Amino acid sequence: MQIQRTVFFISDGTGITAGALGQLLAHFPQTHFAQVRLPFTDSNQKIEDAKQRILIAKAGDGMRPVVIMSLGNIEHRALLKEADAYYIDLFSTFIDPLGVELAQEPLTGKGIAHSVMGNTYNERMEAINFTLGHDDGMTHGGLEEAQVILIGVSRCGKTPTSIFLAMQFGVKAANYPLIPEDFERNALPGVLSKHTDKLFGLTIKPERLHSVRSERRPNSFYASLDNCRNEIATAERLMKAAGVPCADSTSRSIEELSAIILQKIRNHVA
Amino acid sequence: MQIQRTVFFISDGTGITAGALGQLLAHFPQTHFAQVRLPFTDSNQKIEDAKQRILIAKAGDGMRPVVIMSLGNIEHRALLKEADAYYIDLFSTFIDPLGVELAQEPLTGKGIAHSVMGNTYNERMEAINFTLGHDDGMTHGGLEEAQVILIGVSRCGKTPTSIFLAMQFGVKAANYPLIPEDFERNALPGVLSKHTDKLFGLTIKPERLHSVRSERRPNSFYASLDNCRNEIATAERLMKAAGVPCADSTSRSIEELSAIILQKIRNHVA
Repeated sequence: MQIQRTVFFISDGTGITAGALGQLLAHFPQTHFAQVRLPFTDSNQKIEDAKQRILIAKAGDGMRPVVIMSLGNIEHRALLKEADAYYIDLFSTFIDPLGVELAQEPLTGKGIAHSVMGNTYNERMEAINFTLGHDDGMTHGGLEEAQVILIGVSRCGKTPTSIFLAMQFGVKAANYPLIPEDFERNALPGVLSKHTDKLFGLTIKPERLHSVRSERRPNSFYASLDNCRNEIATAERLMKAAGVPCADSTSRSIEELSAIILQKIRNHVA
Repeated sequence: MQIQRTVFFISDGTGITAGALGQLLAHFPQTHFAQVRLPFTDSNQKIEDAKQRILIAKAGDGMRPVVIMSLGNIEHRALLKEADAYYIDLFSTFIDPLGVELAQEPLTGKGIAHSVMGNTYNERMEAINFTLGHDDGMTHGGLEEAQVILIGVSRCGKTPTSIFLAMQFGVKAANYPLIPEDFERNALPGVLSKHTDKLFGLTIKPERLHSVRSERRPNSFYASLDNCRNEIATAERLMKAAGVPCADSTSRSIEELSAIILQKIRNHVA
């Protein structure tokens, strides 16, 4: 039986940085974590509300909650910690000690981490626009601007991976499907021949592709296991012949695929 | 003059959790951080390579680098720390102490945090598909499945915000433009009338909208400051009359907008 434990992410800003640490809870699979986000906690009243919720969760679980907090205001930090919980305080754990190392006082204003002022923000927005405009081979124009072009059979994960690359890393990621016409011609799409060095292939296990396609078009030739097998085998052969690096999306998240693709792009650039 | 300092994100997985802590560097605006990601650092050889890069960066900056690390393997952790750097070790500062609190040994395998096994992963992928299929009012079908429907004038930030909501939080976020026909009719689009409780409005300052639209269609009526002013004023009036909550995207990031929208959705659900 799983133990239930509540985790609060309490921030004076978006709570997204604190929330990212929530991924680390995956290291404790025996516990079921009920996650509560309390962004914009930037007044005494909101701190009091948060404390009430901590006490209620403690009573409900029969165990004190875990609180991951990022609060610039020192009084708010102290006030919050009056409630009994296990606190992971990003300021006292990370930011303040880092300030000592850097010999700088950290900014303590609210919502520092996710403002539009970040120097990469506009780059990310541009990349998202580019990626949405170059999804699924919808245009050949501007491919020279792409930093990577993902290719692969329909429904192998190109679109969400492209968007993640753009949103998280500001990478202009186009994607281009490999379709039956390409397999009949036995060649990658001609329009990609100028861009071979930017291509990255995604592939997938036939059984998984069959299952994904069947959700969309049940009992179709398109979704049949035989057709999935043939498309994948041909796509992999074409990519290999063209020297296109390739990763299998079957058991990898878009985060993992993106990290692999970034390494390839950066090694190429370096 | 800004001080240059190199920050390494060294992980045996994607490095995305470690990288998220990079947002905290925004608290130190006097330093320019050159960021280097070393994901999949999961062998003695890769640890040695990382140590070499740390030493080179130290020589180049004239100051020891900051290293944010997430390595499950205890020997790898010790080996890496032989190189002179300021280490922020997610295991020793976060995961191991949390294990004591939870009375559980943490998993130390590689790439735990961003695997496809996470129970919210499929939800996020479904939400991305939904959001892309319901971008810019492209279909009226399935709006009852949406958890939120963003509305607003063209180019006010609906699309990237919707995608962020889906990708980060697994929220099915449709978006629907308010267009000149709506302003002439002086009413929100009829198809939305069944979904008033799911609507969330984005607005923007006329000067900013004029600038954004001018990039796309310079010197057009569409991009003119007068037209931007009129569209925004009418859109805000229509949203207010219908009781639609609204946020200004001019000086807010998609992270900030999403956090605001999530609060509204969750308060509604609760």
